[in-house]
Amino acid sequence: MNDFIEVAEAIKNSRSPVLCGHVMPDGDSLGSLLALGLGLKSMGKEVTMVSSDPIPELYNFLPGVENIHVGNVPTGNYDMLIVVDCSVPERLGDTLLPLVDTVSTVVIIDHHVNESPFGQYNYINSRVAATGELIMDFLDYLKVKLNQDIATNLYTAIVTDSGSFRYENTTPETHQKASRLVECGVSVARLSNLIFGEQPIESLRLLQAALNTLEVCECGKIAWMSMTMEKIQEIGATDQHLEGLINYPRKVKGVELAIMFREMVGGKVKVSFRSKYQVDVNRLARVFGGGGHVRASGCTVEGELSQVQAMVLAEAKKLFRGC
Amino acid sequence: MNDFIEVAEAIKNSRSPVLCGHVMPDGDSLGSLLALGLGLKSMGKEVTMVSSDPIPELYNFLPGVENIHVGNVPTGNYDMLIVVDCSVPERLGDTLLPLVDTVSTVVIIDHHVNESPFGQYNYINSRVAATGELIMDFLDYLKVKLNQDIATNLYTAIVTDSGSFRYENTTPETHQKASRLVECGVSVARLSNLIFGEQPIESLRLLQAALNTLEVCECGKIAWMSMTMEKIQEIGATDQHLEGLINYPRKVKGVELAIMFREMVGGKVKVSFRSKYQVDVNRLARVFGGGGHVRASGCTVEGELSQVQAMVLAEAKKLFRGC
Repeated sequence: MNDFIEVAEAIKNSRSPVLCGHVMPDGDSLGSLLALGLGLKSMGKEVTMVSSDPIPELYNFLPGVENIHVGNVPTGNYDMLIVVDCSVPERLGDTLLPLVDTVSTVVIIDHHVNESPFGQYNYINSRVAATGELIMDFLDYLKVKLNQDIATNLYTAIVTDSGSFRYENTTPETHQKASRLVECGVSVARLSNLIFGEQPIESLRLLQAALNTLEVCECGKIAWMSMTMEKIQEIGATDQHLEGLINYPRKVKGVELAIMFREMVGGKVKVSFRSKYQVDVNRLARVFGGGGHVRASGCTVEGELSQVQAMVLAEAKKLFRGC
Repeated sequence: MNDFIEVAEAIKNSRSPVLCGHVMPDGDSLGSLLALGLGLKSMGKEVTMVSSDPIPELYNFLPGVENIHVGNVPTGNYDMLIVVDCSVPERLGDTLLPLVDTVSTVVIIDHHVNESPFGQYNYINSRVAATGELIMDFLDYLKVKLNQDIATNLYTAIVTDSGSFRYENTTPETHQKASRLVECGVSVARLSNLIFGEQPIESLRLLQAALNTLEVCECGKIAWMSMTMEKIQEIGATDQHLEGLINYPRKVKGVELAIMFREMVGGKVKVSFRSKYQVDVNRLARVFGGGGHVRASGCTVEGELSQVQAMVLAEAKKLFRGC
């Protein structure tokens, strides 16, 4: 693992970097990518931004988003690959994975716990709420002036990954940074409405279907919901509409561990975990080959929905006495 | 209107102040009351805190809340009445209103626009997100050390009135203050969970039932849901569980007018209206003998659920061209 200045100096010396985030891009991944991309561009660097997956409609408002190449990497002479908010190569997606071998220098900037990130330069700091916080530090070091566009991207990164400053990862520093970003002209109410206020009708239909499956275990500490592929197709929903569903079992009063089961193609089930105060769900997800944060993690498990559900719940129940 | 220092000096000189907020106390009113109360107590003043209305269960976690006298004013020799988050005397409630005449000095600290507040000392600043922000400034001036209890109250005041830093009123200063409060040991995740995160299972069951009835009209501008008495009884829900349901049709992307129909006893239907940007729902509610604000209103209409629904929707559709 490198220290901050080593990584910042490496970036400073690159001339034609290619930047990316992770598959199924979220607010932190996209906001970080765009803020860094716009920042490095303002320094005169030849910046290329790529995403293996399409940009969720929700994030179409992000300044500069139209410059992200989706699903392909333009041919170019890249001297550095900068990966933000993604510390395992699998989360680059098949399209971008080859870049790790073809670009001479790989830089990772992330806030996910990771013992062995895959870059030549790695800056992992899991004490921040969002990778966007780290990008802000790098832009400060590189003396990039935070204009309204960059600030809007950084703010989106921070506000999405901190749950609007509600999660445990929100530190005094998170608010300090938000303060500076609002100072730069971020339109707080507009952004909040775009990010948290409106939902496509498909999301509400999915929520309805998911709530129909809501269960709470007898001890009251675990709540879960599930979503079949059939239902997703019936509603005509896509990945983006599924985001945030996990919050609903999490909302149930008294629940410590929330789980969302989602049927995937190829006989697999995607499992998402959230915990409130005690349970380390990163550890729980690792039992099934996944991972993430202490309070938010996930894994993909082979098997039928009902089987996976039974297996995961059995493991989860071990965490609670008398459950 | 007085300046900040005049008001702060007046408070500094009081010895036995009685403090209150407004009727139907909310997070800003209670958090401000308690923060100021605890702060002045730590200065050695003889502090009495009163509320005309009961404290909502949600706020039972606030440090010091057990010291608020509810529904009565203990007899005492008060040299000052300090009213926070309330600039019209009617919002004191009948129990507390007499204090305005019996206590020699009345001080108002508030962030609601008001041309003629009723105190001898008035500090009204509508540029802040919450009265809690002003209380924090006063405590700073009075050199009160912000301990965890005071910080928790101030944070609650700010986070509730800024909608978790999402409303237009959130300024760089709001985040600066939040940063300091988190530094003082506010437990962000716990508080957010208590205030925004948790819901009784009945609320989620009701949401599920309500979403099953979600409809959007062809033009996409009106969305509505309904709730039968049978369903409410089946779930074992009460009034408090119904709060916030109207937000869901409002969330639907593109919808301008959201309506919630709720069957009541005695062959009546309670209708709630919300609009986003254009429609004056106060006017719409008045057609049916109700009223309220421009963006939030309601009415109670006699008739069967399906009849009332058809009638109200017919009226609502007149507001949209081609609907």
